[in-house]
Amino acid sequence: MRDFDEQTITNAVQTSFAGTPDARLRQIMSSLVAHMHGFIREVEPSFEEFQAATKFLTATGQISNQRRQEFILLADVLGVSMLIDAINHRMPDGATETTVLGPFHVADAPLCANGADISAGVAGELLFVDGSVVDPQGTPLAGAAIDVWQSDAEGFYDVQRPERSLSALRARLCSDAAGRFWFRSIVPAAYPIPDDGPVGAMLRATNRHPWRPAHVHFMISAPGYQMLVTHVFVAGDQYLESDAVFGVKTSLIADFVAMPPGALPDGSESAQPWRQLSYQFGLKPAST
Amino acid sequence: MRDFDEQTITNAVQTSFAGTPDARLRQIMSSLVAHMHGFIREVEPSFEEFQAATKFLTATGQISNQRRQEFILLADVLGVSMLIDAINHRMPDGATETTVLGPFHVADAPLCANGADISAGVAGELLFVDGSVVDPQGTPLAGAAIDVWQSDAEGFYDVQRPERSLSALRARLCSDAAGRFWFRSIVPAAYPIPDDGPVGAMLRATNRHPWRPAHVHFMISAPGYQMLVTHVFVAGDQYLESDAVFGVKTSLIADFVAMPPGALPDGSESAQPWRQLSYQFGLKPAST
Repeated sequence: MRDFDEQTITNAVQTSFAGTPDARLRQIMSSLVAHMHGFIREVEPSFEEFQAATKFLTATGQISNQRRQEFILLADVLGVSMLIDAINHRMPDGATETTVLGPFHVADAPLCANGADISAGVAGELLFVDGSVVDPQGTPLAGAAIDVWQSDAEGFYDVQRPERSLSALRARLCSDAAGRFWFRSIVPAAYPIPDDGPVGAMLRATNRHPWRPAHVHFMISAPGYQMLVTHVFVAGDQYLESDAVFGVKTSLIADFVAMPPGALPDGSESAQPWRQLSYQFGLKPAST
Repeated sequence: MRDFDEQTITNAVQTSFAGTPDARLRQIMSSLVAHMHGFIREVEPSFEEFQAATKFLTATGQISNQRRQEFILLADVLGVSMLIDAINHRMPDGATETTVLGPFHVADAPLCANGADISAGVAGELLFVDGSVVDPQGTPLAGAAIDVWQSDAEGFYDVQRPERSLSALRARLCSDAAGRFWFRSIVPAAYPIPDDGPVGAMLRATNRHPWRPAHVHFMISAPGYQMLVTHVFVAGDQYLESDAVFGVKTSLIADFVAMPPGALPDGSESAQPWRQLSYQFGLKPAST
């Protein structure tokens, strides 16, 4: 194994991994080497570019900590996270499309009854969410567990607001006998991904903005069905066509319908204009 | 730019980089996205594998510091460093093949006259190096600057020996009117690359060893010629076929010829057996 040239070195390196005991790891290393060498042969990096790349990757590792994962952010802005999500969620007709979990989910959000106000007093335009959970044939699923979380009217999650409890704008609910769930909240806002690190520098160097269009996150599970992790995006948002992390799918954009002051669907009253989101979530059976 | 699927997301991400002002950066990002997505489509990573990859990369960044660059080590064991070296050094006939600089070069090594003993008293088998520097037509190059550095008989460089000065087994010399240079040293030993970090863990998981065959480093420059950075490997070393960083080329393997006690080429005497390395280095004109 020597005297390889620019072409044959790839096979030499792949061969060095031939003794990997785990067949899956062997496959991954062999494929990684082929694609990485292909990239290098295509761009022919100079030593200065190679050095810049290692410096970038080192900084990406060093800024990461318990609360920040810059390599996942890098995967997000390169479309890698959504590609992996797509590969792992090939959905049948009738099942809602998926998105990545994102960094702002928190386990053990408050358990709320349907109709609850999950805003915890955070200011914003009143939003009434009216959801339903069904199987791919449209049959309602009772007793589904719904986990919901979202940004506030300025684009921040509670975990980004040190002064706020970790129960603002997030909740766990349960669908009723008709598969329905409903709650009050506020309209979320668009927000930038963290852009004070290497990934932010990369976005600036490439004239890309760090914004994500406004959305509400949902994670929905029911016995016998795959867990659904998705976003519902606010129709009309200026960043729908350029989400920094490539998360938008047309089927996940919904009208957050502007309503005049008056009665809400649950019979309560609003003295201010409010908005309504109605969305049906389709779960995929676990066996398919 | 939404509603991309597993295939079309690649073009969507490439398009997001279309506004990159620097044309070279634009090319690199577009190629990177294509090859990275191709890798992901080929191996179809699970979320657990994706998480393991980000954890590995983060650890690789976090163990790096002023004295240790684990991403370069990673590039080394994946053959990436030698591929980039090959791309940047397409050599004409008559020019010596190149290798990577490696992490153990130190600027400002001691200036030595030809015939000097560069071992600084470090124990080992006496080695007499007898080199020459020529152009691709074989014409001797006088006044070439030669920088040489090597491991000791246990495989360590002086920089890895805190108790030792930074002038053991390294030197700068100059070729004479006939293009020749010569010095005394000791025979270098094979050594493992640093394997106490993520790269070492990867080598163990893939049943690869961390060893490099014994070698002496040379960096040679002369006005009007490209700087040559190379290794000369000890023929017969057990790791020549499996260098952990893919640095071996047949043209760079030389006999370190075993000699009986007696006269050395410079007229001095050795009471012990000694070894002789004779090697001719060909420089590439700067303009080609």
